Amino acid sequence: MSEPKRISVTLLAGGVGGAKMAEGFAHLPNVDLTIICNVADDEEFHGLWVSPDVDTMIYTLSGRIDRNQGWGVADEGQRALSVLKELGQDTWMTLGDKDLGLHIFRTMRLRQGASRQRITDEICRAFSVPAKLLLASEEVVQTRVRTPMGWQSFQEYFVRERCEPDVLELRYEGQSEAAPNPKPIEAIRNADVVVIAPSNPLMSIQPILGLLGIADALRSTQAPRIAVSPLVGGKAIKGPADKMLKSLGFEPSTASIANNYAGLIDTLVIDSVDKVELSGTYPDGLRVVAEQTVMKTREDKVALAGNLLQRAMTDRVAEALV
Amino acid sequence: MSEPKRISVTLLAGGVGGAKMAEGFAHLPNVDLTIICNVADDEEFHGLWVSPDVDTMIYTLSGRIDRNQGWGVADEGQRALSVLKELGQDTWMTLGDKDLGLHIFRTMRLRQGASRQRITDEICRAFSVPAKLLLASEEVVQTRVRTPMGWQSFQEYFVRERCEPDVLELRYEGQSEAAPNPKPIEAIRNADVVVIAPSNPLMSIQPILGLLGIADALRSTQAPRIAVSPLVGGKAIKGPADKMLKSLGFEPSTASIANNYAGLIDTLVIDSVDKVELSGTYPDGLRVVAEQTVMKTREDKVALAGNLLQRAMTDRVAEALV
Repeated sequence: MSEPKRISVTLLAGGVGGAKMAEGFAHLPNVDLTIICNVADDEEFHGLWVSPDVDTMIYTLSGRIDRNQGWGVADEGQRALSVLKELGQDTWMTLGDKDLGLHIFRTMRLRQGASRQRITDEICRAFSVPAKLLLASEEVVQTRVRTPMGWQSFQEYFVRERCEPDVLELRYEGQSEAAPNPKPIEAIRNADVVVIAPSNPLMSIQPILGLLGIADALRSTQAPRIAVSPLVGGKAIKGPADKMLKSLGFEPSTASIANNYAGLIDTLVIDSVDKVELSGTYPDGLRVVAEQTVMKTREDKVALAGNLLQRAMTDRVAEALV
Repeated sequence: MSEPKRISVTLLAGGVGGAKMAEGFAHLPNVDLTIICNVADDEEFHGLWVSPDVDTMIYTLSGRIDRNQGWGVADEGQRALSVLKELGQDTWMTLGDKDLGLHIFRTMRLRQGASRQRITDEICRAFSVPAKLLLASEEVVQTRVRTPMGWQSFQEYFVRERCEPDVLELRYEGQSEAAPNPKPIEAIRNADVVVIAPSNPLMSIQPILGLLGIADALRSTQAPRIAVSPLVGGKAIKGPADKMLKSLGFEPSTASIANNYAGLIDTLVIDSVDKVELSGTYPDGLRVVAEQTVMKTREDKVALAGNLLQRAMTDRVAEALV
């Protein structure tokens, strides 16, 4: 028997939803998973650089994640944060002791002059993360959210304000100035399959897609490109996608997700509970298919990843036969 | 009844022994305690600025200290350090989670441009430290220790090597270049009593005394000046003072302590177990008296502080009557 061919999957992803999708692929045999992870929710807290989406990805894939809350580390403490609070610091951003250990390391390495990608590589190696984790950008790009209270950082809106204020405008600060990052671009070009995770399209995916070279790479890659909608029955499973789409004037529907990714994907996977709407409501040439997209157990994740791969590879074989 | 007059005590001190002495004075009624604390055992760990002597002082005086070990914080965890270790960091310097909360704060404020004294003031206020804690220097002064293994930082020698190597030479890096620090100098000049704590004379006190203006202030102050010997029966109660004095060629005796402080103190307090040696072995004009100097309980500390004050104030009154 010959070695089974390995399949390169490149996943564009944010935090919790992205990490679930990544976990599914990471547990498929014969998949080499490369993740292009959002960094636009990064923020400095107490002088330490925190990368919530990247860390959720690392904690999930290394089995450290707190499964009950879906973010943060299991068996975590709050001793350091309790002292920072006594010292008068705002501590609405819950940073556990183990989590702070990671942020201390990252910040130290940044100050030593190490690149963000190199630091990520060091952490992934030490934690045995079973995937290649690429930062969408080596530079600081930060999502800013305008609400009736004014402009806020993503974490202020997401954690401190619990996504309650209306979102009037989004800005990806530093995005247009950021130099193109060759590794994610190559990972899209060289993939066998490109997947956009069921992450928030505006908060997690757009900060990646808007970076110079990324959308072009998606348009020109030979790989089948699949996105998984984060909406199930018009609602986000987690996070503010539905509410935010609405307050920005978009209908929170699979059709608006499809239009958002128009030209960048071949297939949109929606949840089985959503009826595949009239083809006229989707961009031309986009295939819309239904799957069980809600990922609760590891089996759910692996099953969805396997189904996506099946569809994509069938397309690829079909194309090769034309 | 008129208000009892308050007495200003200025204490020169290092870590554990210094903090015990400080606790004694802090619990005396009618004492305004100012501590000039050694900073020459400061060191950066994992990109965070750690001030072990200052922190031991703060933790002791705010009741947070781990009474079993005499340093660090009670009810402490090691979660952050365990992650730093997994990430390949040297973690011989035990830094607990609560402790790291303080170091994170200090480092953040330093990077924001706050002065070291201001940061210390902020911490002392937040923690209700019942004393004025002055840093010996606003600048970085670091004790370096030459052993047969070469030059080491103080913490490398003290913590990593457990004071085991012979000490061949000491250097106080940055001491001669440091600008004079007006607050400690004033605190010595304006005190009613100046006390040198039973801290290591070479490791904790000399890094203070060698700073520009400090020894001069001690020589010229009108206040009675008392030092407490850290040796009991020729041995240090804690730390490497006896062994180090020996390996540097000094006899670990109360006489060599006296000679070390010659001209800077009026009275040397030695422990009751040590016989007051022949007056010829002490510098001229120095009075040597015996007290119970071992401080185990709070009562021991307060009793010693009270006895020192009694002696000093009697001298002061006697002088006033001349």
